[in-house]
Amino acid sequence: DFLNALNEVKPAFGVNEEDLKMVTKGGIIKFSTKIDEIINHGMRYLKQVSDSQKTSFISLLMHGPSGSGKTALAASIALASKFPFVRFISPEAMVGMSESAKIQYIDNTFRDSYKSPLNVLVVDNIEGLIEWVPIGPRFSNPILQALKVYLKRSPPEGHRLLIISTSSTHAVLQQMDILNCFHNELAVPNLTSLAEFNNVMESVDFMDENARAYITKKLQAIEANNGARLNVGIKKALTNIDTASFDQDESNELIELMAQTMTSR
Amino acid sequence: DFLNALNEVKPAFGVNEEDLKMVTKGGIIKFSTKIDEIINHGMRYLKQVSDSQKTSFISLLMHGPSGSGKTALAASIALASKFPFVRFISPEAMVGMSESAKIQYIDNTFRDSYKSPLNVLVVDNIEGLIEWVPIGPRFSNPILQALKVYLKRSPPEGHRLLIISTSSTHAVLQQMDILNCFHNELAVPNLTSLAEFNNVMESVDFMDENARAYITKKLQAIEANNGARLNVGIKKALTNIDTASFDQDESNELIELMAQTMTSR
Amino acid sequence: DFLNALNEVKPAFGVNEEDLKMVTKGGIIKFSTKIDEIINHGMRYLKQVSDSQKTSFISLLMHGPSGSGKTALAASIALASKFPFVRFISPEAMVGMSESAKIQYIDNTFRDSYKSPLNVLVVDNIEGLIEWVPIGPRFSNPILQALKVYLKRSPPEGHRLLIISTSSTHAVLQQMDILNCFHNELAVPNLTSLAEFNNVMESVDFMDENARAYITKKLQAIEANNGARLNVGIKKALTNIDTASFDQDESNELIELMAQTMTSR
Amino acid sequence: DFLNALNEVKPAFGVNEEDLKMVTKGGIIKFSTKIDEIINHGMRYLKQVSDSQKTSFISLLMHGPSGSGKTALAASIALASKFPFVRFISPEAMVGMSESAKIQYIDNTFRDSYKSPLNVLVVDNIEGLIEWVPIGPRFSNPILQALKVYLKRSPPEGHRLLIISTSSTHAVLQQMDILNCFHNELAVPNLTSLAEFNNVMESVDFMDENARAYITKKLQAIEANNGARLNVGIKKALTNIDTASFDQDESNELIELMAQTMTSR
Amino acid sequence: DFLNALNEVKPAFGVNEEDLKMVTKGGIIKFSTKIDEIINHGMRYLKQVSDSQKTSFISLLMHGPSGSGKTALAASIALASKFPFVRFISPEAMVGMSESAKIQYIDNTFRDSYKSPLNVLVVDNIEGLIEWVPIGPRFSNPILQALKVYLKRSPPEGHRLLIISTSSTHAVLQQMDILNCFHNELAVPNLTSLAEFNNVMESVDFMDENARAYITKKLQAIEANNGARLNVGIKKALTNIDTASFDQDESNELIELMAQTMTSR
Amino acid sequence: DFLNALNEVKPAFGVNEEDLKMVTKGGIIKFSTKIDEIINHGMRYLKQVSDSQKTSFISLLMHGPSGSGKTALAASIALASKFPFVRFISPEAMVGMSESAKIQYIDNTFRDSYKSPLNVLVVDNIEGLIEWVPIGPRFSNPILQALKVYLKRSPPEGHRLLIISTSSTHAVLQQMDILNCFHNELAVPNLTSLAEFNNVMESVDFMDENARAYITKKLQAIEANNGARLNVGIKKALTNIDTASFDQDESNELIELMAQTMTSR
Ligand SMILES: Nc1ncnc2c1ncn2[C@@H]1O[C@H](COP(=O)(O)OP(=O)(O)OP(=O)(O)O)[C@@H](O)[C@H]1O
Ligand SMILES: Nc1ncnc2c1ncn2[C@@H]1O[C@H](COP(=O)(O)OP(=O)(O)OP(=O)(O)O)[C@@H](O)[C@H]1O
Ligand SMILES: Nc1ncnc2c1ncn2[C@@H]1O[C@H](COP(=O)(O)OP(=O)(O)OP(=O)(O)O)[C@@H](O)[C@H]1O
Ligand SMILES: Nc1ncnc2c1ncn2[C@@H]1O[C@H](COP(=O)(O)OP(=O)(O)OP(=O)(O)O)[C@@H](O)[C@H]1O
Ligand SMILES: Nc1ncnc2c1ncn2[C@@H]1O[C@H](COP(=O)(O)OP(=O)(O)OP(=O)(O)O)[C@@H](O)[C@H]1O
Ligand SMILES: Nc1ncnc2c1ncn2[C@@H]1O[C@H](COP(=O)(O)OP(=O)(O)OP(=O)(O)O)[C@@H](O)[C@H]1O
Ligand SMILES: [Mg+2]
Ligand SMILES: [Mg+2]
Ligand SMILES: [Mg+2]
Ligand SMILES: [Mg+2]
Ligand SMILES: [Mg+2]
Ligand SMILES: [Mg+2]
Repeated sequence: DFLNALNEVKPAFGVNEEDLKMVTKGGIIKFSTKIDEIINHGMRYLKQVSDSQKTSFISLLMHGPSGSGKTALAASIALASKFPFVRFISPEAMVGMSESAKIQYIDNTFRDSYKSPLNVLVVDNIEGLIEWVPIGPRFSNPILQALKVYLKRSPPEGHRLLIISTSSTHAVLQQMDILNCFHNELAVPNLTSLAEFNNVMESVDFMDENARAYITKKLQAIEANNGARLNVGIKKALTNIDTASFDQDESNELIELMAQTMTSR
Repeated sequence: DFLNALNEVKPAFGVNEEDLKMVTKGGIIKFSTKIDEIINHGMRYLKQVSDSQKTSFISLLMHGPSGSGKTALAASIALASKFPFVRFISPEAMVGMSESAKIQYIDNTFRDSYKSPLNVLVVDNIEGLIEWVPIGPRFSNPILQALKVYLKRSPPEGHRLLIISTSSTHAVLQQMDILNCFHNELAVPNLTSLAEFNNVMESVDFMDENARAYITKKLQAIEANNGARLNVGIKKALTNIDTASFDQDESNELIELMAQTMTSR
Repeated sequence: DFLNALNEVKPAFGVNEEDLKMVTKGGIIKFSTKIDEIINHGMRYLKQVSDSQKTSFISLLMHGPSGSGKTALAASIALASKFPFVRFISPEAMVGMSESAKIQYIDNTFRDSYKSPLNVLVVDNIEGLIEWVPIGPRFSNPILQALKVYLKRSPPEGHRLLIISTSSTHAVLQQMDILNCFHNELAVPNLTSLAEFNNVMESVDFMDENARAYITKKLQAIEANNGARLNVGIKKALTNIDTASFDQDESNELIELMAQTMTSR
Repeated sequence: DFLNALNEVKPAFGVNEEDLKMVTKGGIIKFSTKIDEIINHGMRYLKQVSDSQKTSFISLLMHGPSGSGKTALAASIALASKFPFVRFISPEAMVGMSESAKIQYIDNTFRDSYKSPLNVLVVDNIEGLIEWVPIGPRFSNPILQALKVYLKRSPPEGHRLLIISTSSTHAVLQQMDILNCFHNELAVPNLTSLAEFNNVMESVDFMDENARAYITKKLQAIEANNGARLNVGIKKALTNIDTASFDQDESNELIELMAQTMTSR
Repeated sequence: DFLNALNEVKPAFGVNEEDLKMVTKGGIIKFSTKIDEIINHGMRYLKQVSDSQKTSFISLLMHGPSGSGKTALAASIALASKFPFVRFISPEAMVGMSESAKIQYIDNTFRDSYKSPLNVLVVDNIEGLIEWVPIGPRFSNPILQALKVYLKRSPPEGHRLLIISTSSTHAVLQQMDILNCFHNELAVPNLTSLAEFNNVMESVDFMDENARAYITKKLQAIEANNGARLNVGIKKALTNIDTASFDQDESNELIELMAQTMTSR
Repeated sequence: DFLNALNEVKPAFGVNEEDLKMVTKGGIIKFSTKIDEIINHGMRYLKQVSDSQKTSFISLLMHGPSGSGKTALAASIALASKFPFVRFISPEAMVGMSESAKIQYIDNTFRDSYKSPLNVLVVDNIEGLIEWVPIGPRFSNPILQALKVYLKRSPPEGHRLLIISTSSTHAVLQQMDILNCFHNELAVPNLTSLAEFNNVMESVDFMDENARAYITKKLQAIEANNGARLNVGIKKALTNIDTASFDQDESNELIELMAQTMTSR
């Protein structure tokens, strides 16, 4: 199955394995059926790109709240492709470069991604790549313009490419008129119920079932009192669980940390 | 006729055939009589440019929604001209260049397009050429100023030129006061009825007639339920049809993909 | 008379004849008495500049809608001056130059225009020279500042100069506080009646009198139905007439093209 | 008296005579007693700067509408000073320079103006020096900052300096917080009555008394009909008079030209 | 205990001791139990970073009003870590550098902070690092983009890192969408009661108990009269106490200085 | 006393005497007790800086309307310190420098001010240093950022420093969030009563007592008629008195000049 595929894959060449391993090393917890759906859709697009007579190029957008798991999911699908060429591009690799050096770097990466007959490219954190900041707002228009071309450009005859981009600022992409660079979109959700959160605690073996039931009950009370719903990314959920485990009173500290998340902002 | 002409044409020199072939390789599906009208008007302007005593220069604007087929239509008319010199300029060719290099490149292309006695130049995606982005808004004023001159400049004595520009941001061009650079405008429509969509499915042999009737009925129901009308570019329609064909349940997946298109944004 | 003068003139030296010939080659159709008035005023200013004891320098602004014939009129008056030095400056000559190269070029042109005892300089398309675009708005302030100085600077002792500038953005020049650079202004009108349009059709021998009467009647009906008035530049009117002559049904196509002009924007 | 002084003055060294002669060559017509007042105040400040124990430096601002005669008045007072060093700085001398070259030029001019024991410096058209344009608005902040320092800087021990600046954008200087650079301000008025205009016609011997009376009567009628008051700069008034004298019907053309001035904008 | 730890610590290598000593030399006065809580939380995060199986990287934000003691607290926790590598980065070290030199410097500092197995990095005054100023607003987007990457980047395998950032502009960080760079936040409070202020006076031996009681009573009256509450940073409180001690009437001067603080802005 | 001290002081080295002498050469007229208070507070801060165990660094802001005497007061206190190192920095010294040269110059000046054991630094006209202009608004953020660091940076161990900054734009500094760079603020007032103005006339021996009484009475009448209060800086008051003394009718001219001041803006 999918997760096993993920572990077996050893592309012959061209994958920058370290980056992809790094971002997927936390694993994928199937806390909801929506996670399966995302993966299934991803697998279908892999099939379309590799087999279609008409389409040798698909460009997807994976979007969702900050910390919802976009990068891990995109990288996992890419790794599961077993395509010979799998690459990953993110702001981290370009930090401190000048604008023109960044464009050069992006250009090289996209060019590389046409080399093999079958290619996957993860374009992680589009708003970071274009240096978006809501105050102003500011961003690099030259980088944006380059991306708009690259995200729409078909690979040359005889080459096939799936691009999976990620972003936590869907509305910004829409305002920038670049949603038309994508053939389709996949939404990645936050944890939105205490049941899902319980699944996560279970998966990482946080305390015993009683303790988890206690935590759930307390958080239900907080939901009720504040008229607030749990709405937290998997990343934050996992960090809070680990932080709590270093406190004397693990359960109550986790409750407090989650409560902050639920009532802040 | 027109489409045959398209296939026969082999200009003696000067055409950058690859670009034009690439953008027209999906063909032109005559899903509506409006497509014929656009092509007829295009052919008439070709005649005027080559034969008029008074006019040796015409500049057209082909505008319409994103993915409505502007580039394919403009390139097809250009190829059908049988003019000895047919060129294509788009943002893709200039990606990553500095602003001044872009202006140089544009300058060269326009100069080239005066070389033969009869010339066609497709200026694809004007908003992309000027690096337009609605946030800010931002764009390259030096490139815009250069284009304003080039799009109005008659070729020298003894040379004739038809320019066909494309754009999906008509309102922006109007605000920028550059609509007066064009002698006339041609609007390219989206698919706006299920009958037109059915024509497309038929043209590409998607499933059998029953299945298509089923799809149409379901989409009618969705239109009715949402008070939404089908309004989708030919490009998206063709992609959805291909994507659906890689699903287990082709018909229902196509319905779902089209429904997303109809209800989003 | 004026138009004959236009054809005879052969300045001894210094005129950049080609530019001026190019922009006047469509001729001046006297579709209205306002055209005569503009020409008469122009001739009077020529006389003032060449004969006045007090004034050796006059700077005029010729403004009107896009395509109303400003450039052709300004150039015609300049050519009719029979002054030994007649020059023409427009954005076309400077396309693709850097800002400082443009300023250098403008500087040279103005300096040249002081060389002869009697000089005329046409400064065509001021908003283009300063790279004006309404979005932003943006323009080159260094070029604007240079123009403000040049348009006010008297030629040295013993030299006389008439500057005729053209612009289709009078309101912009006013906001920029540069109307005070001009000693006077001349407004160039659009065609604003069907009678004037008929004069134009007649001048260029478009079809016979019956056909023109038919066209006029149809356009009257359109005016009536839409509560819209004909308001079109001479340039567009002439292009439409020529385009229509390449259609199978010339009269009705001209009606359609003019109708578009009357109902759009 | 003042005007004679103006003609006699021949400073021993350092005056850039040509500039000052150029801007004063139209003379000063005393069309109103306000003109005398301005000149008297100017003379008093000259005396203060040359004789005061306490004050060796005065900086004045001469402001008024465009074309009201600021430059001519400032230059005339400067020439009348009989100070050994009289300089003139205006945007004209710096046209086409880079920003830093302009600052260098301004710096040199101010430095020069400390050289003699008694100095006058006319800083003409402050808004032009700082490249002010109301759209944006834009201006050169580096030049502005330099001027703010120079306009407040006392000359070194043993040197005395009067600065007379001119500007037609008083409100802008106020918003920029630079009015505090001036020790005092002198307002230069437009012609605001037909009597003043008549004085001007008389001074330049425009036609005979009857004709002038006719013109005045007609302009009174126009004032009455439009509820508009004459409000025109001396510069425009003099140009109109000269232009009219080249028309067949001088009186009526002058009336028409003045009427335009009264009813426009 | 904590404060003793602070004095003992002598990291083997890599600490830039001088910076950290400098900012902590005023000591930590425990004027409220909230100070203990902050320190306890800090110690727990130190433990998590050094011991967790799952987490080898934690990034904290210490935020609070200007002068509330953020820098002193962050540096104290860092020094108390006894980690072999403790570094401090603040705007002071980069003053006058070009933007790219600053990014280089930040890059070096973060790289250094991965060198040891256990590392603490204090990133002091984030808004200063990005050159934030509320007018405009303006800031360095390149520095911001670099920080966003660095603050989220895990150290390489086998290295552990705690980042403690400080900021007095929490709302700005939120608008800039960079709060998601932090795993958690610690709020640093002002002195908000006269009892707390009294604790401070006592700690620094300001006058005797009677005098302090007198001061407190007077300040209570001021609170009552103005409906204002004491709300002052520890830094300002300590400065005022020292300033007052150089006045003839120490008590009343302190009251006056504190009153200004309470009623201003 | 203070003013004598001012005259005696001859710092051994390091003072840029000329600058300080220049700005204080008009003397300090004690037209109100508020002037004494400012000087007393200044002297106390000098004592704190030189003697405190806890504080070796104080940064003051002297703010008030344009021309109220800030620079003269700050420089006088600095000169009265008898500290071996007294420096003065103002926009004048940096005029025409590039931004980076200015930062370099500021950096050098602050570094110098740490050299002696006891130092005073006058940072004159902060808004001028940062090139502030309200239109835009514009200013140099790099200079501002450098100043924010310098104004907060303690001198190294064993060195003591008092900074006295001046500004006439307190509200701007507040918006820029840089008031927290100062340990305290001193407000410098305008002349706000006719009694104070009379003190000034007396100090400079303007005419005799009768004349001054006459002037005062007339100005009282103007206050009454206009509902306006005298509110004028000492600088303007002194200039007006000197200008008036060059008029034939000294008293009435002074009344008129003061009246302008009272009714303008
Ligand atoms: N179902 C899941 N989906 C995604 N990530 C998961 C899932 N279960 C566990 N994880 C872990 O949660 C973390 C998600 O972090 P990730 O960086 O992918 O989120 P993100 O949405 O890309 O965050 P950001 O908005 O900061 O880019 C990863 O460590 C991943 O291994
Ligand atoms: N009637 C048609 N008109 C245009 N294109 C058609 C038609 N029928 C099929 N096509 C195919 O549809 C696609 C249209 O895409 P094209 O890039 O031309 O659209 P576009 O409007 O230029 O898109 P964009 O807004 O992204 O520039 C092409 O692959 C073309 O071959
Ligand atoms: N009465 C007329 N006045 C002006 N031009 C005329 C007239 N009759 C015919 N023409 C022709 O019409 C055309 C006018 O175009 P022209 O470029 O001068 O207009 P314009 O106002 O300068 O346009 P734009 O606003 O684009 O600069 C020319 O080809 C000219 O020869
Ligand atoms: N009383 C007067 N005052 C000023 N100028 C006069 C007067 N009488 C005649 N003139 C003439 O009028 C003209 C005034 O033009 P000037 O350039 O000085 O005006 P300005 O206010 O500086 O214009 P601008 O606003 O364009 O700078 C000059 O030619 C001058 O010789
Ligand atoms: N409980 C305390 N917490 C923090 N600082 C304290 C405490 N008690 C005393 N201090 C002293 O108070 C001062 C706090 O200044 P610090 O620079 O740390 O504040 P800050 O919040 O970082 O200020 P800024 O907003 O200007 O950066 C230091 O000198 C510190 O030694
Ligand atoms: N009591 C006083 N306080 C300050 N200055 C005085 C006083 N009495 C006389 N003066 C003189 O008044 C003048 C004040 O000018 P100064 O330049 O110091 O004002 P400022 O507030 O710094 O002005 P600006 O806002 O332009 O910087 C000086 O010449 C000073 O000698
Ligand atoms: Mg991510
Ligand atoms: Mg296209
Ligand atoms: Mg024109
Ligand atoms: Mg002038
Ligand atoms: Mg701090
Ligand atoms: Mg000052």
